Amino acid sequence: MKGRRYNTMINVTVWNEFRHEKTDEKARAVYPDGIHGYIAGFLGKQDGIKVRLAALDDPENGLPQSVIDETDVLLWWGHMSHEEVSDDVVKRVCDAVLRGMGFIALHSAHFSKPFRSLMGTSCTLKWRDGAKERLWRINPAHPIAQGIPEYFELPHEEMYGEFFDIPNPESVIFLGWFNGGEVFRSGCTFVRGHGKVFYFQPGHETNPTYHNEYVQRIILNAVRWARPENRISEITAPETQPLEKI
Amino acid sequence: MKGRRYNTMINVTVWNEFRHEKTDEKARAVYPDGIHGYIAGFLGKQDGIKVRLAALDDPENGLPQSVIDETDVLLWWGHMSHEEVSDDVVKRVCDAVLRGMGFIALHSAHFSKPFRSLMGTSCTLKWRDGAKERLWRINPAHPIAQGIPEYFELPHEEMYGEFFDIPNPESVIFLGWFNGGEVFRSGCTFVRGHGKVFYFQPGHETNPTYHNEYVQRIILNAVRWARPENRISEITAPETQPLEKI
Amino acid sequence: MKGRRYNTMINVTVWNEFRHEKTDEKARAVYPDGIHGYIAGFLGKQDGIKVRLAALDDPENGLPQSVIDETDVLLWWGHMSHEEVSDDVVKRVCDAVLRGMGFIALHSAHFSKPFRSLMGTSCTLKWRDGAKERLWRINPAHPIAQGIPEYFELPHEEMYGEFFDIPNPESVIFLGWFNGGEVFRSGCTFVRGHGKVFYFQPGHETNPTYHNEYVQRIILNAVRWARPENRISEITAPETQPLEKI
Amino acid sequence: MKGRRYNTMINVTVWNEFRHEKTDEKARAVYPDGIHGYIAGFLGKQDGIKVRLAALDDPENGLPQSVIDETDVLLWWGHMSHEEVSDDVVKRVCDAVLRGMGFIALHSAHFSKPFRSLMGTSCTLKWRDGAKERLWRINPAHPIAQGIPEYFELPHEEMYGEFFDIPNPESVIFLGWFNGGEVFRSGCTFVRGHGKVFYFQPGHETNPTYHNEYVQRIILNAVRWARPENRISEITAPETQPLEKI
Repeated sequence: MKGRRYNTMINVTVWNEFRHEKTDEKARAVYPDGIHGYIAGFLGKQDGIKVRLAALDDPENGLPQSVIDETDVLLWWGHMSHEEVSDDVVKRVCDAVLRGMGFIALHSAHFSKPFRSLMGTSCTLKWRDGAKERLWRINPAHPIAQGIPEYFELPHEEMYGEFFDIPNPESVIFLGWFNGGEVFRSGCTFVRGHGKVFYFQPGHETNPTYHNEYVQRIILNAVRWARPENRISEITAPETQPLEKI
Repeated sequence: MKGRRYNTMINVTVWNEFRHEKTDEKARAVYPDGIHGYIAGFLGKQDGIKVRLAALDDPENGLPQSVIDETDVLLWWGHMSHEEVSDDVVKRVCDAVLRGMGFIALHSAHFSKPFRSLMGTSCTLKWRDGAKERLWRINPAHPIAQGIPEYFELPHEEMYGEFFDIPNPESVIFLGWFNGGEVFRSGCTFVRGHGKVFYFQPGHETNPTYHNEYVQRIILNAVRWARPENRISEITAPETQPLEKI
Repeated sequence: MKGRRYNTMINVTVWNEFRHEKTDEKARAVYPDGIHGYIAGFLGKQDGIKVRLAALDDPENGLPQSVIDETDVLLWWGHMSHEEVSDDVVKRVCDAVLRGMGFIALHSAHFSKPFRSLMGTSCTLKWRDGAKERLWRINPAHPIAQGIPEYFELPHEEMYGEFFDIPNPESVIFLGWFNGGEVFRSGCTFVRGHGKVFYFQPGHETNPTYHNEYVQRIILNAVRWARPENRISEITAPETQPLEKI
Repeated sequence: MKGRRYNTMINVTVWNEFRHEKTDEKARAVYPDGIHGYIAGFLGKQDGIKVRLAALDDPENGLPQSVIDETDVLLWWGHMSHEEVSDDVVKRVCDAVLRGMGFIALHSAHFSKPFRSLMGTSCTLKWRDGAKERLWRINPAHPIAQGIPEYFELPHEEMYGEFFDIPNPESVIFLGWFNGGEVFRSGCTFVRGHGKVFYFQPGHETNPTYHNEYVQRIILNAVRWARPENRISEITAPETQPLEKI
């Protein structure tokens, strides 16, 4: 009997639309190497995590089958160009999740094609820029909450408000409070097939949200939680089953 | 085949500690006949609902076995005297829930003996009097949400804040936003055995919360939702099962 | 305050592929008017339910927008021709579910386009014809279980076995046991947007499963459970929200 | 930022009633050092796990506060003497779970005092000795399922059958099929406060179930999954909260 190979590497791919940081002064000031570059920076410092970058304007949107096949956990940040992601890539990503790859959808990725396809709902929500947010940890037993205090604050974040049209999550780990009167299921988990999915609401492109130590810890925890447990190579609709003598 | 007997009566018992309204001028002003009397008033006007009152200072805390046996849904409001409810009555109530009786815990009943026993957790939370609350409806498909708008406000309510130490609810129907920076799972459902449980947070004794039309509608919806589907007369740990030829 | 309009009509549409019954002697013998005709027969006898039929070979697959708009609960039976359902109709159905319409997927409808889209997973499973099934009721508190005994048997049913690739259901109401050694989550509920979804496994086209009194009761219960609570006319991605003074 | 300390030790206590193995020839033959001794044997060989034994007839039932305080995950096997466990110890165990300690209830521990208290239900079930069981893995994405095949068999196990009176689990990982026609939610997870709970059905005292490689792997996986994420030293009902300027 062998247990979990804690020392094996987690192969992470951080996907970013990577458009705002090229055209918007404010976004570039906060994330000069792109949001994906920044996230890769703090994840890559951790033992046992190997990070790769991918972006919308790369060939095959940065996600050829060979990259997907080597990815244990895929992080996704997209906002203004969801429709430019090719349907083939979307299918490839969703198929990989169902076969075991972890998927972490960040902020406006609630409207990304893979997330919506995995949820089966519209994923609509309310929004307003320029809010103060307080994140409450409501499932302290969850691995993604490890080391996170009862609550923490983000002084400048985009408000995302309910009703958030998602299926009932397996676990709501964080609830967001906003100073304009809104609430949000800001950190939620889902299982889809053999894969795990985490949605995390904060992370507007012009705010230094990913600089926050707790946000970084949540993303790191989520990467470790989302690694595959039982990856399969193919989804097959099984043939008829022989009747066994039991 | 016969379907649900929609026209049969739902027998409701509204239990109240009924102490504040006797000693606190402000509580008496809002609920001169007691919180239970007020709730019974608006429920009793509905077709198909028959209401009975019960209070802590009644014999057997108002809940002899004969009353429990005739109750389809029990509402519970308690606050300062939880410990005075006899353990026999608590056992009787919990046993009835496991056998199919609906149980609706209102406001400070989060700390009542039956609710804590049914949850298996400490049911602790944060609190502060004198807050403004906004209730967001996050599960519009749930029968308890029927006819409730996207959100509604209670200008004067007691803040109850997370972390609320309850098991992960089957459904969180309402999230509470408070002007002091807190959030709360304000309307939650649970199944325990053959019975359904609903917890609803608003309802401090000195606020006219139960006068609110949406609060009344939620309680009415909950009563209808919580009626027994398959009530049993006894919980038995079955004897060993004979092996059948299958 | 007005409560649920228990006396209002539920408008049900029973959709059937309706091919087996035209070409397969055995299917026609059991369901001479089609599976949809048979289901409509026993549902239509109930007070408060109005039934309409629809089939794959009808214009617009029997589901023009006008029919969808008048449907509270849609039942779906499909098997060999899932791919012939037009993508426009699938989109129309899924959109209606997210806006509040109930959806009941029967047997091989696990592989129908609308069900797979609403689940976000592959919905693959194991199968073998000619099994004996025993259905265990594991959530006696659920309205869909009302009046159903602890278990009941179907002497001739198609085995559907785990792993069933669906998201974690809100409630698993029935577990199927099969004489060949398999188990299955045979009756499951989901919420998608404003709508409710029920999947029920029994119902192979050559077996008289829909003649069974408990199967009929489950379908009737499901229809009543799945009716819309808060139907909306359109899913809108809200504009930015004005900041209110709270 | 520091991530999970993967290399820190997990302190496990294996509690056993330890009566059958002293009085029943067959039980002693399979577990000469007790079930707890056997489980401690295979867990203790793993890196990063330190195991301690405790038994009913030890002082304070083997679980003085000092042992609880040093325990990250407590495994519990009990059967014929549940009532002999002192209520003080039960309270101590449940309090520790709510504060973060993992709790793994094995087989007949479904009826143990701590498990029933944490569930809030009767935990009744059906049973028959001498069954053949097949365990189906229905949540391949869960860490407790890591390395477990689609199904595996136990040729001699005690049948535990539905209806199992437990709250709806967070995740049902394994379903049990039995040759006598029964099914069971054989591997289930729950969260209670800051702690995680796993129930695992196989493990009758006269069967070599704990010798099975997959059973051992499941228990090992569960120990790693159940370790505390955010342990607290005390459950406090918070004082009223000061109103902050937000």
